[in-house]
Amino acid sequence: MARRDLVPEETRALAEIVGDAHLLCAADDVAPYAKDWTRDLVAAPAAVARPRTTEEVSRLLATCSARGIPVTPQGGRTGLSGGALAVHGGLGLSLERMTSILEIDADNFVAVAEAGVVTQALQEAVEEKGLYYPPDPASRGSCTIGGNVAENAGGPHAAKYGVTGRWVLGLTAVFADGSVADTGGKTRKDVAGYDLTSLLVGSEGTLAVVTRAWLRLIARPAVQATVLAPFASLPAAAEAVFEIHRRGLVPSACEIVDRPSVEVSSRKKGLAVPFPEAEARILLDFDGPSGEEVEREVTAAGEVLLTCGALDVALAADEPRRRALWEVRRGMAEAILELGVSFEMDLAVPRSELVALVGAVRRHAGAASLRAFTYGHAADGNLHVRLLREGHSAFDERALETTMTAIYAEAVRLGGTITGEHGVGLTLRDLLPLRRPPAFVAAMRAVKAALDPKGILNPGKLIPAPA
Amino acid sequence: MARRDLVPEETRALAEIVGDAHLLCAADDVAPYAKDWTRDLVAAPAAVARPRTTEEVSRLLATCSARGIPVTPQGGRTGLSGGALAVHGGLGLSLERMTSILEIDADNFVAVAEAGVVTQALQEAVEEKGLYYPPDPASRGSCTIGGNVAENAGGPHAAKYGVTGRWVLGLTAVFADGSVADTGGKTRKDVAGYDLTSLLVGSEGTLAVVTRAWLRLIARPAVQATVLAPFASLPAAAEAVFEIHRRGLVPSACEIVDRPSVEVSSRKKGLAVPFPEAEARILLDFDGPSGEEVEREVTAAGEVLLTCGALDVALAADEPRRRALWEVRRGMAEAILELGVSFEMDLAVPRSELVALVGAVRRHAGAASLRAFTYGHAADGNLHVRLLREGHSAFDERALETTMTAIYAEAVRLGGTITGEHGVGLTLRDLLPLRRPPAFVAAMRAVKAALDPKGILNPGKLIPAPA
Repeated sequence: MARRDLVPEETRALAEIVGDAHLLCAADDVAPYAKDWTRDLVAAPAAVARPRTTEEVSRLLATCSARGIPVTPQGGRTGLSGGALAVHGGLGLSLERMTSILEIDADNFVAVAEAGVVTQALQEAVEEKGLYYPPDPASRGSCTIGGNVAENAGGPHAAKYGVTGRWVLGLTAVFADGSVADTGGKTRKDVAGYDLTSLLVGSEGTLAVVTRAWLRLIARPAVQATVLAPFASLPAAAEAVFEIHRRGLVPSACEIVDRPSVEVSSRKKGLAVPFPEAEARILLDFDGPSGEEVEREVTAAGEVLLTCGALDVALAADEPRRRALWEVRRGMAEAILELGVSFEMDLAVPRSELVALVGAVRRHAGAASLRAFTYGHAADGNLHVRLLREGHSAFDERALETTMTAIYAEAVRLGGTITGEHGVGLTLRDLLPLRRPPAFVAAMRAVKAALDPKGILNPGKLIPAPA
Repeated sequence: MARRDLVPEETRALAEIVGDAHLLCAADDVAPYAKDWTRDLVAAPAAVARPRTTEEVSRLLATCSARGIPVTPQGGRTGLSGGALAVHGGLGLSLERMTSILEIDADNFVAVAEAGVVTQALQEAVEEKGLYYPPDPASRGSCTIGGNVAENAGGPHAAKYGVTGRWVLGLTAVFADGSVADTGGKTRKDVAGYDLTSLLVGSEGTLAVVTRAWLRLIARPAVQATVLAPFASLPAAAEAVFEIHRRGLVPSACEIVDRPSVEVSSRKKGLAVPFPEAEARILLDFDGPSGEEVEREVTAAGEVLLTCGALDVALAADEPRRRALWEVRRGMAEAILELGVSFEMDLAVPRSELVALVGAVRRHAGAASLRAFTYGHAADGNLHVRLLREGHSAFDERALETTMTAIYAEAVRLGGTITGEHGVGLTLRDLLPLRRPPAFVAAMRAVKAALDPKGILNPGKLIPAPA
């Protein structure tokens, strides 16, 4: 598919739907929609529509479908796989004006939110009512519910609570031809037909545009505590993460970070962290309905950590200390990015293979004279890796790609995957066959052709280009 | 599609794949495969194949695909919506010989089981290792993992732990043309491509045949307790269920049962139950890692129950008493069935609408002079209803259908669904449009045509007949 521009008659038809003020065509207006948080990628749509209602989205898609205009749905544009980039031009469909939290139903533990609601805004609104929405991608201050649904976003709390998909009870979906369906609602159990909700979650805007979500909530945990444990090496820390879980402990978050990542982030944040000399550390959260329960878990975890070679175990029970530790963790990706590092890998393996994965990363990076920054959601076996050229010189892109592909292959060999939470998007599209067998990819192609026969929805993403 | 018989050359080709002993053609041999647990329905396949391996399943499907032979996958044949009935003849594909538990991985909390493993057998094997697989359909002594996956089965413990789908990490799927793909594995997080695992879960054998599943496990809860609370009326009990959850309590099971259901089941089991005069009762399980925690929840629940008008609150902390109460509950459907009642409805609504649903059932049943038996997984708003003609006379089938359709419509009007856990199958197929909008059904048809272009997989089920 070539880059698609719009003729004046098309922009008029689209502007009629959303109003002139919300169809952006000037290059300056469109420019912000040409980027997401993926390194170095820029692709401007020919125009950007900012609809306010599901009905407007429906009319936009019907129009684009009739005229064969590619449509790239966009949320907070915080993605890390290029999924929101309009690589074939056409229309950027930004859900940024659909920001209403339509309902927080404390009786049924359900929130109903439009796609453009920022995740943290939803969490705060929900917590005000004593409720809790656990999915917490690092970008939660900027990313949106619609984007989280499209990517099946994870985050630290997936350790205990699972990723976004586990919290979605239903969606309002607008299909490529403009037809609209609610796929669920407030009912917790519903097996009437295929699970289209789960099919759309993580489909990266290639099967439908999501305008609204019904999200499951729980009671807000009364007590939280954070534990920090420094280690002499990254493999030792990875082994401890494995052992913590093998014993049946379930931290609400369990992050692993290496020394270089901590240094860069704490320097940028201007926050001192304890044990600066430690080569690696684990950050654990525990939550629960009572202090005794959380205390029991923290104590048990502390014992396991020390058995596994932790240099120390520090408890941050008070809120300011907890927040400081998490601020360093949450700011990590952004701080490291400024060094001019590689694209952020998003490897995931079975927890028992974490140590092997950490070793493989180090081995492959070392062989190519690259420095690895490693941090991530270790509880889920999910590690982010960025590579830096020693001396900060420019990358040999070909060599970098070879190294990254080798690391992806190792993750798959260990029973893991090439992306745990960031999605395939543009960046991993042609690596998908590394993880998925031909019959899987064939089924994806068939489903895509069935639901989007003209191929207008987010073309160029997720599904490998035909050989 | 007319009823499909097999010509001798076809049976020869199929027998060559599984061996003569495992291709059943004689009427007597096939007869057991003509029924499931759905009332009154009988439909015999022309032959039944009992493959032992995924490869045999693959070759069977390739053969049936090439010759246009309908294939009806069968597990324990305990379904309650006719999903396993070969209504178009052709081949019954029984997974009953694929009964290996391939691995219980205590390091990663994953079980790998073939489709024909009986659910309870898996649970017991897992519990021996101190682990726990929560999904527990009432038929768990006879149903299979493959059947649970096909139907996205529920059960009492879905209250706290969710239905089968939430525990499935991956499947080995054989598509209609015989191609095979693993859709996941031991990795807990994986967003590489569409979530085909979730698409196949609950697809009732219409999109692929599942031969193996990777199932998530947790540590076995150390402590369990059961609470029984009698009420003066069913609506009062329903209100109490709502209030228990509204307060943020999370029982691991929360069942509601009415007096007629308890009477029939306790009589058949020969087990006396406390409070025989109560019009309704709630059975609650709580579980947790420590006695104190469970005790705190039980105490809190007891207070709420009494506030909500419970006539009493009885604790069954010891195992024999717990088991007796649950035996009466689990035997209910079977005992009631012997009265010659209607098909078992499987309504689900948002929890706040339980009281309204109970009222609607009573109203509609009363208007048609039918007696309702009501029992179910109230925590999930999921109620089973069977209707009995007063005086046990034969049903006026037309009037019965009208009443049942009216009750289904009420459930949908209350924001609920026509099936919470039993599936659409044959029995609800033409009622699906009551619950799902046209664009939803259209998407289902498109996905079905994409993955099973010849329509050989479980034809006549789930998807409404074309108008």
